[in-house]
Amino acid sequence: MKQKKVFLDESEMPTQWYNVMPDIPGGMSPPLDPETKEPMAPEKLAEVFPMGLLEQEMSDQSWIDIPEEVQEVLRIWRPAPLVRANNLEKALGTKAKIFFKNEGVSPSGSHKTNSAVAQAYYNKREGIKRLSTETGAGQWGSALSFATHKFGLDCKVYMVRVSFDQKPYRKSMMNTYGAEIVPSPSPDTVIGRKILESHPDTAGSLGIAISEAMEDALSRDDTKYALGSVLNHVILHQSIIGLEAKKQLESIGEYPDVVVGCCGGGSNFAGIMSPFVTDKLEGKDIRFVGIEPASCPTLTRGKYAYDFGDVAAMTPLLYMYTLGHDFIPPGIHAGGLRYHGMSPIVSALVRDKIIETTSAHQLECFEAGRLFAQAEGIIPAPETCHAIKAAINEATMDLNDPKTILFNFSGHGLLDLASYDAFYSGNLHNYDYPEEDIIAATKNLPVI
Amino acid sequence: MKQKKVFLDESEMPTQWYNVMPDIPGGMSPPLDPETKEPMAPEKLAEVFPMGLLEQEMSDQSWIDIPEEVQEVLRIWRPAPLVRANNLEKALGTKAKIFFKNEGVSPSGSHKTNSAVAQAYYNKREGIKRLSTETGAGQWGSALSFATHKFGLDCKVYMVRVSFDQKPYRKSMMNTYGAEIVPSPSPDTVIGRKILESHPDTAGSLGIAISEAMEDALSRDDTKYALGSVLNHVILHQSIIGLEAKKQLESIGEYPDVVVGCCGGGSNFAGIMSPFVTDKLEGKDIRFVGIEPASCPTLTRGKYAYDFGDVAAMTPLLYMYTLGHDFIPPGIHAGGLRYHGMSPIVSALVRDKIIETTSAHQLECFEAGRLFAQAEGIIPAPETCHAIKAAINEATMDLNDPKTILFNFSGHGLLDLASYDAFYSGNLHNYDYPEEDIIAATKNLPVI
Repeated sequence: MKQKKVFLDESEMPTQWYNVMPDIPGGMSPPLDPETKEPMAPEKLAEVFPMGLLEQEMSDQSWIDIPEEVQEVLRIWRPAPLVRANNLEKALGTKAKIFFKNEGVSPSGSHKTNSAVAQAYYNKREGIKRLSTETGAGQWGSALSFATHKFGLDCKVYMVRVSFDQKPYRKSMMNTYGAEIVPSPSPDTVIGRKILESHPDTAGSLGIAISEAMEDALSRDDTKYALGSVLNHVILHQSIIGLEAKKQLESIGEYPDVVVGCCGGGSNFAGIMSPFVTDKLEGKDIRFVGIEPASCPTLTRGKYAYDFGDVAAMTPLLYMYTLGHDFIPPGIHAGGLRYHGMSPIVSALVRDKIIETTSAHQLECFEAGRLFAQAEGIIPAPETCHAIKAAINEATMDLNDPKTILFNFSGHGLLDLASYDAFYSGNLHNYDYPEEDIIAATKNLPVI
Repeated sequence: MKQKKVFLDESEMPTQWYNVMPDIPGGMSPPLDPETKEPMAPEKLAEVFPMGLLEQEMSDQSWIDIPEEVQEVLRIWRPAPLVRANNLEKALGTKAKIFFKNEGVSPSGSHKTNSAVAQAYYNKREGIKRLSTETGAGQWGSALSFATHKFGLDCKVYMVRVSFDQKPYRKSMMNTYGAEIVPSPSPDTVIGRKILESHPDTAGSLGIAISEAMEDALSRDDTKYALGSVLNHVILHQSIIGLEAKKQLESIGEYPDVVVGCCGGGSNFAGIMSPFVTDKLEGKDIRFVGIEPASCPTLTRGKYAYDFGDVAAMTPLLYMYTLGHDFIPPGIHAGGLRYHGMSPIVSALVRDKIIETTSAHQLECFEAGRLFAQAEGIIPAPETCHAIKAAINEATMDLNDPKTILFNFSGHGLLDLASYDAFYSGNLHNYDYPEEDIIAATKNLPVI
């Protein structure tokens, strides 16, 4: 047995992010103004995002420097280890080599912290005092709470009510880092009050929470908004995952045949796979497999079209795979994958057939997660269980195929153990949609 | 800034444990038979422990090989990182250098896993099919659940009822690794039923849970008992912490002026400090500071005497600092530090003035833990907050003293966030004892 864990020295941590946008064969379509349906004017986006991030959002540069201040905070836990899942391989009886990039080692327990630190930094640099955001599963809210504390910013988190109630430990974590947290919909915003009036018992959704956080940022001069996935600058910040993984594999003479990740908004998957895209375009035999929940089948059953990112239709229109912005997925336990849309970058790479997509039901994903925990010790987040399921599929389709699989272990599940309890108790169920429901969900897409 | 994190290559992981017993100037007193009060006959101990562990328990060898099968499992997460707490130093405004050994990276989240793996291995090797154990805070139960699964053993965990109720996520973790868990006192044992009859609402205690687990092991041929701290073989297994830390500090040209750890049963503190003891005996200027909760002041206010390890007086008599085996400490949130006794090795080193002792109240420890989390990202276990408090004391007694502090970050607090909530809500209190209560507690020590 060779080294199980591959570390990079801190001096080997990437000092530039990789921007995959210039590589996309079919190009990207610009975000549109929700009112005029014309390409969004940068000054309007500047009401909610700082210029440093907007420049990245639209950049055609392949490499963008990581500021020293951001690197310093990232070095608290990065470079993240690359781990050979040899015990999982043995449990599966496969000749495949399975590697995972362990993003669970970050302070908040997931890859989200990578972008949170960068976003807090650029806002701080431009004099912003406070950030508003939404969180579904709680991973992003925790990450931004940590990052804003590091840069001395205040932070308000609108947490989807069902998660707020189910995951009290996520609130405690955000409290520890000094953030303010309210369940969404909340009485603190116009849109929140409106929804509470018509649906007092609603479980909430990411789409609603985004509307609230956007309204918060738009209504205060000292505040801007931060989003934890979907957008191009978030994908950019997450490229550090793939850049490190590539170096780590190189250092042991390996190269992946397939790169796997779970897809909610797309950032962890794009983060690990985007630095490999040029290799594929240059003819390298490498596959990228994104997996999503069958209960929120954005990439596998959604439409590729312009749509809003939120329920209240306040965000710019993004060209992406979508199930319709008023689609409310069932309350599955992988809260981070319950989003109607998908990163425009990931969507374009799917359109251009660079990324393959697949889906899985939650019960088989928890089963995969338990097998992984027993073999490798670490308990994965429910979202990450999807990536593990896809990696296991790849490793077992032909047990004698010695292929090299790299997957993104996007986060640990230590704050999601109630979901495992529900699984063990037999109270979890799968959800599926008849085709007519998907057709109905996507029939209200905005007309451009 | 130099490297923040110091890693060792897997090939540099220690292949031998260090046994500090031969170094102890005043020597060790043997365990006594609870019935005859004569030195315990090994064949009687062999009813509950496998020979491989008993040999270690009484060994006079300084170095003992770590079996390859144990090393292989330890390599899932070891060597553990040594981290420079430079952000904490900055927050304190101290010139001291603070390093911590991060044992929170283990599968179950604490140092306990180091001994669990070794204990499961030696039991497996001798044909044992099942282990019984107790757990207080849940750290040890989780660790043994993971380790027994790795070696194909069954595991039954008697979990102190107050923790069982307060820490549902610990149960979920043990379930994930396939163990059976019951709240203690339980109806599954004679002693459990007896206590439930007289005290149906008892919160339980480690002393009771130990009695139950011992009874379980004694009543079944296929089962032996496992203890997560206190005993000499556990301290031996934990020496890997200090051995690694010493190598890591050496690799960056550092040597500690003071080594700090929290003391419950003593294993994490002894684990990090014991490999440095010979240096001190040879005249090196190094201090060892053990910190315990003021609400369970075994080392600072207890008696040095023979006492039982459990409430039912079933265990051998150990020569140690003790508050009396029927002392039930208040329900503070550092459950792992709520034990009436102390490792005989740590006790002897205190007697010989090699170890200094101190205590702290839980509120100041949580405050220290929060400060650490905000600075370094990682949320510490309530037990670990004590070590952090002592490290901060060392770093701030003279802010201009550039001393080097090494402390054991024994575990993360991600499954203890409810305790932080209690702290934030103002519902936590300190506990202290008037001297007459301590005198009363220790007046029933067995007469030898």
